[in-house]
Order: sequence, then C-alpha cells, then structure tokens
Amino acid sequence: MIKDENRTIAAISTAVSPSGIGIVRMSGNQSIEIADKVFKGKKSLHESKSHRIHYGHIYEENQMVDEVLVMLMKGPHSFTKEDTVEINCHGGVFIVKKVLDLLIKNGASPALPGEFTKRAFLNGRMDLSQAEAVSDLIYSQNDYALKNSVNQLKGKLKDTIQEIRNEIIYNTAFIETALDDPEHISMEGFSDKLNIEIKKWLKKLNNLIDSNENGKIISEGIKTVIVGKPNAGKSSLLNVLLGEERAIVTDIEGTTRDILEEHINLNGILLNIIDTAGIRDTDDKVEKIGVSKAASYVEEADLILYVIDASRALDENDETIMKMIDGKKCIFLLNKTDLDTVISKSDFASNLANSNLKENAVIEVSAINITGIDEVEETIKRMFYEGNISFNNEIFITNVRQKDALVHAKESILRVESSVENQMPEDLYTIDLLDAYEYLGEITGETIGEDLVNEIFQKFCMGK
Amino acid sequence: MIKDENRTIAAISTAVSPSGIGIVRMSGNQSIEIADKVFKGKKSLHESKSHRIHYGHIYEENQMVDEVLVMLMKGPHSFTKEDTVEINCHGGVFIVKKVLDLLIKNGASPALPGEFTKRAFLNGRMDLSQAEAVSDLIYSQNDYALKNSVNQLKGKLKDTIQEIRNEIIYNTAFIETALDDPEHISMEGFSDKLNIEIKKWLKKLNNLIDSNENGKIISEGIKTVIVGKPNAGKSSLLNVLLGEERAIVTDIEGTTRDILEEHINLNGILLNIIDTAGIRDTDDKVEKIGVSKAASYVEEADLILYVIDASRALDENDETIMKMIDGKKCIFLLNKTDLDTVISKSDFASNLANSNLKENAVIEVSAINITGIDEVEETIKRMFYEGNISFNNEIFITNVRQKDALVHAKESILRVESSVENQMPEDLYTIDLLDAYEYLGEITGETIGEDLVNEIFQKFCMGK
Repeated sequence: MIKDENRTIAAISTAVSPSGIGIVRMSGNQSIEIADKVFKGKKSLHESKSHRIHYGHIYEENQMVDEVLVMLMKGPHSFTKEDTVEINCHGGVFIVKKVLDLLIKNGASPALPGEFTKRAFLNGRMDLSQAEAVSDLIYSQNDYALKNSVNQLKGKLKDTIQEIRNEIIYNTAFIETALDDPEHISMEGFSDKLNIEIKKWLKKLNNLIDSNENGKIISEGIKTVIVGKPNAGKSSLLNVLLGEERAIVTDIEGTTRDILEEHINLNGILLNIIDTAGIRDTDDKVEKIGVSKAASYVEEADLILYVIDASRALDENDETIMKMIDGKKCIFLLNKTDLDTVISKSDFASNLANSNLKENAVIEVSAINITGIDEVEETIKRMFYEGNISFNNEIFITNVRQKDALVHAKESILRVESSVENQMPEDLYTIDLLDAYEYLGEITGETIGEDLVNEIFQKFCMGK
Repeated sequence: MIKDENRTIAAISTAVSPSGIGIVRMSGNQSIEIADKVFKGKKSLHESKSHRIHYGHIYEENQMVDEVLVMLMKGPHSFTKEDTVEINCHGGVFIVKKVLDLLIKNGASPALPGEFTKRAFLNGRMDLSQAEAVSDLIYSQNDYALKNSVNQLKGKLKDTIQEIRNEIIYNTAFIETALDDPEHISMEGFSDKLNIEIKKWLKKLNNLIDSNENGKIISEGIKTVIVGKPNAGKSSLLNVLLGEERAIVTDIEGTTRDILEEHINLNGILLNIIDTAGIRDTDDKVEKIGVSKAASYVEEADLILYVIDASRALDENDETIMKMIDGKKCIFLLNKTDLDTVISKSDFASNLANSNLKENAVIEVSAINITGIDEVEETIKRMFYEGNISFNNEIFITNVRQKDALVHAKESILRVESSVENQMPEDLYTIDLLDAYEYLGEITGETIGEDLVNEIFQKFCMGK
C-alpha cells in the first residue's frame, strides 16, 4: 500500500462557470486550521462538531470576500477519511478562484486531478475499482451507464474479485501447507476439487471479460450510421429520432465534434448517430468523396440504419449499399409507408434470406406519420442487450485496464487448468495461482504500483 | 409586498459540466417530504435536526442512483427562509439532471432563474439591492467588482437608501401633521431646516449617481483600445500586459467574442483591450476598413493606449491618429526605448501642450525589456480611480435600474428645493417628497410591482 502524503489539499470541486453555488473543497489534517484563518462564523470550526453546516463569511484580512456556508466533516467520517472542509460560495468564476487562492495562501496545496478520490482509495475508504467508478459515474451519459457505475461504486466488482482472490489464496495456501507437512495433510483428491474451482473461476472471469462488449456500448453508446439513397428520408428519420418527445440529446463538453454526430438517448440506450450523404453511383467528385466516407463510417459502426424509400423500386445503388453493409448489424427501414409502396416487408425479407444480412430486422416506418419508431427502439434493445441487462446483479466491465487484468488472470488460471490436466506436480500450480491473484489485485488496487495509481487518478477531473 | 407562492422549487445550482460535485437545491415547505421520498440515509430527514450533513443514497424506486451528501436547512434559517434541502451529488451532467428529475417527479416544481433569491427577497431575508448584489457577485471579474458587490450584499446601499427614506417620510409626516393641527404644531423655521436636509440628501444622491461612472468601470472594465502605426510594437505591448506574471486573463462564458478582445486584470482593474490594425494612409481596401474600424473602436473607448515607435520620427500618420483620438483619455507610450530613440518624452509632451490631449500621460516603455509597464498601471489607476477607491465605505452604483431610480429621486428632491426657494405652500412639498420616497423604494424593492420584480430575477442564473 502506498503511503499518503501530509499535504492539506484544496481545489474547486464544482464546474467553473457562473452559477448559483461553487464549492471549494479542502482535505487533510490542517483543513480546519486553515479554514479558521479565513472563515468567520458564529464560532470557529475547531470548536464545532462534525457534519454541521456553518453560516458565515470569508475574509481576506479585513475585507469580506463572500457570504458562505461551510460544511465540516471530520475524518474518518468523510469522503477522504481526512478532515474535510467544503466552502459553498456564490458560484462566480472570480470568486471561487479567489477563495481557493486564499486557502492556498494560508497553507493548503492545490490538489491534483482526482487527488481527493485517490486519498479515499489510499486511506481505505474504497478499492480501486470503486474509485474508478466515481469517475465513470461523473461521465455517465445514460441510465445504463449510470446504473453500472453505481453498482461498481457499491462494490459489486470488488466483491466478485475479492471472492475469487480469497478462494485462490486459500487453495494456494493449502498446497503449500500440504507440501510442507505431507504426513498430516493429504493431497488426495485435491486436483479434482481444484478443477471444480478452476471451472467456476473461469466462468466468472469469462462473464466479466465478455461483459466488456456490452460495457463499451453502455458507456460509450452504439456507433450508429444512417445510410440510404438520396431522398430516402434519412434526415427526416433522424429528426424523428431526435424529436424532443422521445429523445434527450446529450451535449457534454469534450464530445468530439469533428464529425457531425448526434447523440440520442433512447430510453437509456445511447446512440451516437452519423448521418451520411445519400449513396448513388455518380461522377461528381464531391459526391464520390461523400460515398467513400460513408463506407468508412459503415466499417467502424456497431449498427447500420439503412433507410429505403419503399415507394420506389430497388436499383443498382441499393446493391452497392448492400455490399457496403455486408456482415454488419443492420436494421432495414422501409420508409414512406404513408405513400403507395412498391416494396413490401415480406418480399424484402425473402430477398435477404440468401444473404449474410438475413438475420437482420426489416421494419416498416413512416417518418411523416411517426409510425414504426417504437419497433426500431425495441429492436435495437434486443440486438444489443438481448434481454440480459436487468442490472440486478450484473457488472459490465467498461474499463480497458480492468479488462486487461481480467484477461491476464484468466490466462494464468488456464495454465493452472492445463497443469492439473497434465498431472504436473502440485507445487507448479502455485506460481500461476499467485499470478492470477496478483492480476486480480490490480483491479482492486491491492497489487499495483504508485506510478500506475498516479496515472489512473490523473485522468479524473479537478476537484474530485 | 408581493405574496410568495406555495410551490416547492428545485434546480441544479452548480454549473452543469462534468465536475467533482453537483448540487441540486430545493426550497419550499414540501422540501423535506419530497427529499425523504428519494433519499435513504441513517434516518429520514424529517426526523433530523437542521444544519446537519447527512450521508446516504438517492433511489429511483429500488435502483440506487447516486451516493450523496444531503444538507438540511430548516426555515427560517436558510437562504430563502424556507425549508431547504441541498443534495450534493457526483458532478456528472446526466446524474444531476436525473436527481433533479426525480425531485420533480416527486412533487417539486422546476425553479425559474433567480427564483431562490427572489424568495429570499420576498421573504424579507434581503432587500432588492442586496438580491441584485448576489447576481453581481457571481459575475464579478475583479477584486473591485467583488468588493463592491459584497458591500452591497452586506446592505450598505440599502442602509443609505433607508436612511434617506426615513428622513423624507419623517419630514413629510411632520408637514402633514402640522397642516392638520396648526394650533399645536408650528411650521416656523421648518423650511430652513428642510433646506438643510435637502442639501444633505442631494449630496448623497449625487455621490451615488456619480459613482456610476466608476461603477461601470469596476463591473464591466475599462474599454481600452490600442492604436499606433504598423510596427510600433502594439502586439508586443499587449503580450507584455497579458504576460502571466502580472495578469490574470479572465475567460468567462458569454463574453462576446465578436471582436478580438483580451481581458486583463491589472491588480484588480479590469481592462478590456482591443488591439487594432496599424494605422497608416493607404489605398489598400482591406487596410482602409481596418483603419475605419479602429476609429469606431476609439470613439467607444474609455481609454486609448497610443503606442509610438520612439526610434522613428513622427509623420503624417501620427497626425491622423492624433485627430482620431482627440478629446479621449489617452496614454502615450513611447515604445522601443531599448533602441536609439529620436523622440524624447519632454519634446513629445511639449508638443502636446497646445492640444486637447495635453492632460494625458506620456510614458517611456520597452516591450522588449519590459520597462515602464508599472508606470502604465499606476497611471491607469490614477486616471480612473483618482485615489478615491478605498472601499471602506463607498458604494458604486453599477446597476442601470438603480441609477435611474436615483436620478428620478433626485429630480423630485430638486422640485422640493425649488418649491422651498419659491416659498410655495408647504402642502406642495409633500407630493414631491413622497415621489422621491417611492423612487428610492424601487431600489430596496419596497415600492415595486410584481412584473418588474419578475423581470429583475429573470436575468439571474438558473439555480440561484
């Protein structure tokens, strides 16, 4: 375990933009002393009880700087387990910076990004997987991502990992003790028992590793590309999906704006939708670029929404599109069912029957009458979550670092499995068992170096 | 006084951008009941004492939504004087919106911009001038603006206004009583006494009205335009002024970016600097537009910084510039004193002696060696604050509404003064005295209509 520092740290913990309230947070054993130098209330903070709200004023020498509420939370009953003072100021940019400056002038050190959470981790309030969940929580953009982060914050991942680690260390200890004292402890039948344990561990690890597919979609959203011929109604359909009634468009700082990407939250599923130029055979240079761009988006996509004008017959351009989307998850949207249609759902589906695309849904929609849209939503949910996401017990791994550690742990367990199968001497098992134990400890942070810890918390936002 | 509503209101009170902490605030008599529907802690909030911090979780039905700290402040000991609950969530955009949604689903109404402060005003916690100071405080961009807002928040303007109003109403009441009961109350000598009062009131009102000049500069900054011939060193000088060591560049959302305007905080004085294209006689169309633009900026400016290359002789272009800036507050900066100079400070100053610009400072500077910059700062301070700004007792009016009310009050008092001078009957005084009383009441909010109150608070930020 890495030793914590003695500095008392301070930072602005709210977003820095004019608003009602801004919080300057301070943690460390000098917090109360430093706060008392700038805060004048009914009584000083060091005379006050923990978990009280104090009304008063911040002073710079004799000049009143702001009217504030001060929250006092004495360690260990605080987020960091250290003495913590939160100053709720008026939420001006200049004013919160000023209050932070005053704390620093009076002895606090500027906190690094994530340093409060790092202390919560180092002081044993949470394990590393919970600390990472704090950051995931803040960047959650939909209900599923939020629930997943909350589950991880509650310790679901930690508990699962700890359980496996405990079983691994128990078995390792048993082997070592038995080898030390063969007269009293028999290894007979142990391999069979261990084999049962191994199968159980591998099942748990595989479930976690596999959850990363859904995890990525949950946290980052489904990369969706709308394709179709010109005038098939792609933009109208996008507008229907974006329509305020059913969609919340999330607009979070830092979202890439290089491509025109719309973010739609469909009942908790985040779709990142790219609308493409209409695709048709053309000699026009600009249009050609548009088509080849669409092809590259399609390649990257998790989901294709192929919009077809059902009032017009298919032509060679549709063949081009079919080739482009071959092998992708796709929903065929027969649009303009408000008009006289020439393409029926059953004909279209039977045409697909011999292709790689036959597994995909065909849905009749009208962007004008707003029909069929619910079915699109249901289909997307079914395609990506397969009815498995209930969030009662699952954890979805959304973090590359955690996934890598799980994969390494699994590889070590597979080596133990093969040693058992090949009836290798038992003392060989322990090396791989301890490797798996170490890798799993990286997730909870028990077997991790200071550099990596620093790297993880650096990615946190300031003031957290 | 306008009656308050019964709604319990809720809003996000911190800036909405990913950050460590986000606060959802709720005020009204159902706050505790609504919070208890979504918050699970050690005990329910309605069983808890005021001004305590409660650790717990927010739930949507059985699903945990976030780990939070809840601040309970029972009325009347809260900002709004109503029962107030503040939920400190993790500072994610999705999460704070989600918590707000939950409160609204459970009976809270979305707060209008400024509605918490409006309630603080309507419930008598502060007068209108203090409520307006809350908003000014949030938008303060420098120390002077901050101190001025704090003074106003502390009630300095309110107290001054109330004092005058009390004296006016006392005198009005005296006149009316005396006219009602001439046998017992004599009006002899009253006019003289009233005249002394009038002079005192006018002095106070004039001081407040005049403070608006400085007030505007304090709150909005000094509109500064840098002019000069091409290659005089305008941009280098701007960079020196912007240099991190001496300047804090404020970057606040909503600042107009139409013109390239730099904001520099020089020891508490805010300069809004526009750098112009070099000015010279030219046939080039684009350059001509630049010059005419510079002229229009100069016209609007509070201060001109005229940068002159002291290593080159003056020419007809300098004459053009001199004409352009005629009559403005200006500082002449003889730049490039690091080179051999051909323009001396004394020669330059004596050339100015016969012009309208003679009152202005001439300062030798070097943007390369960074000399003379302190003198520029000192000069700007002297020019705009004339050594008068100590902020021990002054209030600077920064608000147009307040200034207008003061001007109207002054006009009414002037009418009383003229009535006294012209020995008009005393009952005529009372009409104008009561007018002045009413106008001053607009500042404190005692004599103001609901529409205007709504209009004032609409300009506040959400959640305040």
